[in-house]
Amino acid sequence: QALSEIEGMAGKGGNLEEMRVRPLAKRRVDMHGFCNPSGFQRSPYLSARGNFASIFQGSTEEGYKAYHADKYDEDKNPNGIINFGTSENKLCFDLMSKRLTQADMNVMDPPLLQYPDWKGHLFLREEVARFLTYYCKAPAPLKAENVIVLNGCGSLFSALATVLCDPGEAVLIATPFYGGITQSVFLYGNVKLVYVYLDSKITGTSTRPFQLTVEKLEKALQDARAEGVTVRALILLNPQNPLGDIYSLSELRDYLEFAKRHELHVIVDEIYMLSVFDESATFHSVLGMDRLPDPQRTHVMWGITKDFAVSGIRFGTLYTENQDVANAVASLCYFHGVCGPVQHKVAQLLRDRDWINQVYLRANHARLKAAHTYVTDELKTLGVPFLNRNAGFFVWIDFRKYLKTGTFEEELLLWKRFLDNKVLLSCGKAFECSEPGWFRIIFADKTHRLQLGMQRIRKVLEECEQEILAEEKEQPCQSDQEGKADSTDEVIFVSRHQEPTCASSSSLGDLIGLLQQQMRSSDWLQKNTAEQFA
Amino acid sequence: QALSEIEGMAGKGGNLEEMRVRPLAKRRVDMHGFCNPSGFQRSPYLSARGNFASIFQGSTEEGYKAYHADKYDEDKNPNGIINFGTSENKLCFDLMSKRLTQADMNVMDPPLLQYPDWKGHLFLREEVARFLTYYCKAPAPLKAENVIVLNGCGSLFSALATVLCDPGEAVLIATPFYGGITQSVFLYGNVKLVYVYLDSKITGTSTRPFQLTVEKLEKALQDARAEGVTVRALILLNPQNPLGDIYSLSELRDYLEFAKRHELHVIVDEIYMLSVFDESATFHSVLGMDRLPDPQRTHVMWGITKDFAVSGIRFGTLYTENQDVANAVASLCYFHGVCGPVQHKVAQLLRDRDWINQVYLRANHARLKAAHTYVTDELKTLGVPFLNRNAGFFVWIDFRKYLKTGTFEEELLLWKRFLDNKVLLSCGKAFECSEPGWFRIIFADKTHRLQLGMQRIRKVLEECEQEILAEEKEQPCQSDQEGKADSTDEVIFVSRHQEPTCASSSSLGDLIGLLQQQMRSSDWLQKNTAEQFA
Repeated sequence: QALSEIEGMAGKGGNLEEMRVRPLAKRRVDMHGFCNPSGFQRSPYLSARGNFASIFQGSTEEGYKAYHADKYDEDKNPNGIINFGTSENKLCFDLMSKRLTQADMNVMDPPLLQYPDWKGHLFLREEVARFLTYYCKAPAPLKAENVIVLNGCGSLFSALATVLCDPGEAVLIATPFYGGITQSVFLYGNVKLVYVYLDSKITGTSTRPFQLTVEKLEKALQDARAEGVTVRALILLNPQNPLGDIYSLSELRDYLEFAKRHELHVIVDEIYMLSVFDESATFHSVLGMDRLPDPQRTHVMWGITKDFAVSGIRFGTLYTENQDVANAVASLCYFHGVCGPVQHKVAQLLRDRDWINQVYLRANHARLKAAHTYVTDELKTLGVPFLNRNAGFFVWIDFRKYLKTGTFEEELLLWKRFLDNKVLLSCGKAFECSEPGWFRIIFADKTHRLQLGMQRIRKVLEECEQEILAEEKEQPCQSDQEGKADSTDEVIFVSRHQEPTCASSSSLGDLIGLLQQQMRSSDWLQKNTAEQFA
Repeated sequence: QALSEIEGMAGKGGNLEEMRVRPLAKRRVDMHGFCNPSGFQRSPYLSARGNFASIFQGSTEEGYKAYHADKYDEDKNPNGIINFGTSENKLCFDLMSKRLTQADMNVMDPPLLQYPDWKGHLFLREEVARFLTYYCKAPAPLKAENVIVLNGCGSLFSALATVLCDPGEAVLIATPFYGGITQSVFLYGNVKLVYVYLDSKITGTSTRPFQLTVEKLEKALQDARAEGVTVRALILLNPQNPLGDIYSLSELRDYLEFAKRHELHVIVDEIYMLSVFDESATFHSVLGMDRLPDPQRTHVMWGITKDFAVSGIRFGTLYTENQDVANAVASLCYFHGVCGPVQHKVAQLLRDRDWINQVYLRANHARLKAAHTYVTDELKTLGVPFLNRNAGFFVWIDFRKYLKTGTFEEELLLWKRFLDNKVLLSCGKAFECSEPGWFRIIFADKTHRLQLGMQRIRKVLEECEQEILAEEKEQPCQSDQEGKADSTDEVIFVSRHQEPTCASSSSLGDLIGLLQQQMRSSDWLQKNTAEQFA
């Protein structure tokens, strides 16, 4: 009985009917026995998917819970946790607070206090169209009728997944990627991701680490189809999170042509498009392309969260020429509404081109660049390889030399060790990275926090180094030189390649991976159908 | 082939696989042949549920589209449409604009610009707990940990349906009810409603029209179970929309005890709780009850939309003692976030008890009462029966005498005739009312619009009366006196009872009904499972 419950929840079929007949009995959700079963009680008050949502909430938040309970504060809690995990720009609150409290912002006209068009007020959609035309360098003016406005890009992923895919269908995405997308397409939409595993090796057509190629896209798509998975779309992140890569125009064209050949929708997330902080790099929006290979299947998202350093203001936008998609998303916008007065503020912000260009972007880019330089210089001093990019708020770091055997279990232990030393990072597993040992650091933070956080990181790494050296002294032949990486100013080159390792500890972090594995396995979704729940 | 597509979409099983194999072929979605097929093309770009969402969007918005294209404006468009359809309070924009632009509101501190706790900032949840403790007359202080904040009660219905029910499961609700709930629980959650049909007859335990009784709840539940439908929850609207009824304490207790006996969750929507505009009426919140029969299954929702006359400010809140439910809903809150600066504003508003009690509620209630009196006096002059209540923004009106044969087709024609005469109302079908001929008018509007709107309504009714009289002269024996209703100041008493009539026209309005029928029939959801789509 216990086993069937476990499997019913975790993906092997199992006796869900039995679970539902006695809804009041306390039951444990146990993921293949890997996680600590005492931590997860199946709630008799929730549906199967409600329990799933609840576990998700619990598992992804471990580090953030610790952080929220013990936040660093220069004066009040100097020994608190420094957050290098959340991808926020904390460098521009001064500029944004000032701009957002000016007189033109504080408006509460009656139309703003009434129910809006759920796609967004027309004045805002017009402003967004003008803004994107200018900053994406569109060859022709973009149209307000193709713009939809909602409360963030997470909501947009949820809505798009739902209207483009039916339950159990899938979307293609290259790893490592921002892990929140997994939840965004699954929790409501019941859509899974099919991973295109990239690695740091430089071989064949890959001229840089973790390079996405059409060859890899083709293979992942064919593999999924061979397993009976229906893939409806491809997600592209540009600039890429966590890599910081920017796709060239010809790469973009190749990806879009691949999608067109297979009649896949392409969801292009350009949320970091104005956070390219070095003039040497040029970002190309798909909206700036002369010709889209398949305009009816190309959907672009952007928001102010990252580029305007205001994650607390929930605003995301979709640009699509496909009116069927726009209408279907609009019907879900009722659940993702943005307050009228906020719509006014965002429109005022977006139309203030002079302030954006002369004041905000200049300051923001200079600050991002300085912070990035500080963190990367520290990494160089430490002799740690990393991807040296100039977009986004993050550095993708190769801590593999601090893992003794190179497993995800060790990666998690290292992550925990950073947390114990009061600095919160994101480990590669959270991005579905196929190689254990990669970490993401958010550098878009004030100098005093960067200094203290890097100090704490250095302390952990030095301790690890000492331990490894001590072990190597005991067993001098076990050292594996192949795993060490070379780095240059521009890019690191890594030669060790590892297949994804199966997690086997009893921690929360592993549970995330397992949940995600369950979701992407065609098995779980096919066996756990609505019919079975009904 | 055509037929199988129709049935596949509309509920008789059908060949969905066939539909998916050729996703590019243009196909028509045709609902049992009742609606105009040329109006609905199945989009090859959307999933089955995406098409469904798209149709929903199209069909429910007919009246609102007309309104938005031709809005009444005293100066600029005096012949435009008057909107008596949207349940908004338009009487207090002056008070709210003034309060919301005061200096204490215009705050943009860094924590408000960062990612919040997705359940809502603690300062706001604490304020909500204090506010509800006071206005719901809670016997003990309510707790911030039981409060969740999101962007509106529609989102809350969606999230609660998803975490309490699995796809295809159902929730009990009495008709007539605010029809938006159908979409809210279905579009993302794939949860259907089981209707408890109330009618205007006064018999047995029913002492007022459309009275909800435990007997009727029991019967609807047993019927649903006999059909194999799993019912997980009961929705109560109090004050009721569209009836304007307020439940007595003993009624509330009866409903909650019924739910407890059957282990049903109860979702109590109290969004109009402060819009009780006559001192003779006393509202009882379930949060004010000495003892809840089943506190772990009782979930209360409220928001500022209605009571503070600001539908443009997206803010709803859940109060539940069940931490499993709270956590599961919280994990979905990521999709329903409220901007930080708005959370600050709402907290400032809710804590300003003096202004609320001395300024706002006094003015609001006086204005609502005056507007209600104006509209109901007009109805009395017209000799039209209606429910004379004192909560909410609406009057539930009995236009049955203006239907010749008493069908929903005629109801829709009358609705259309009002719209053609530039006044938008809601017809009973939109609330799943079982008797054709009932309409809802929103009276919470300025005098000049009420006057003009009532004039236009009077014109239509007088024309209808003339036509019926003319016909009766020709066929004097066909007149049916049984259908006429008596009314008093307090309540109307109606004697004619009609079973729901099957729609048979080719209009959009009928399509809504058909969609809703499909959704509540266990057939559609059981046959159209995720497995079938996958």
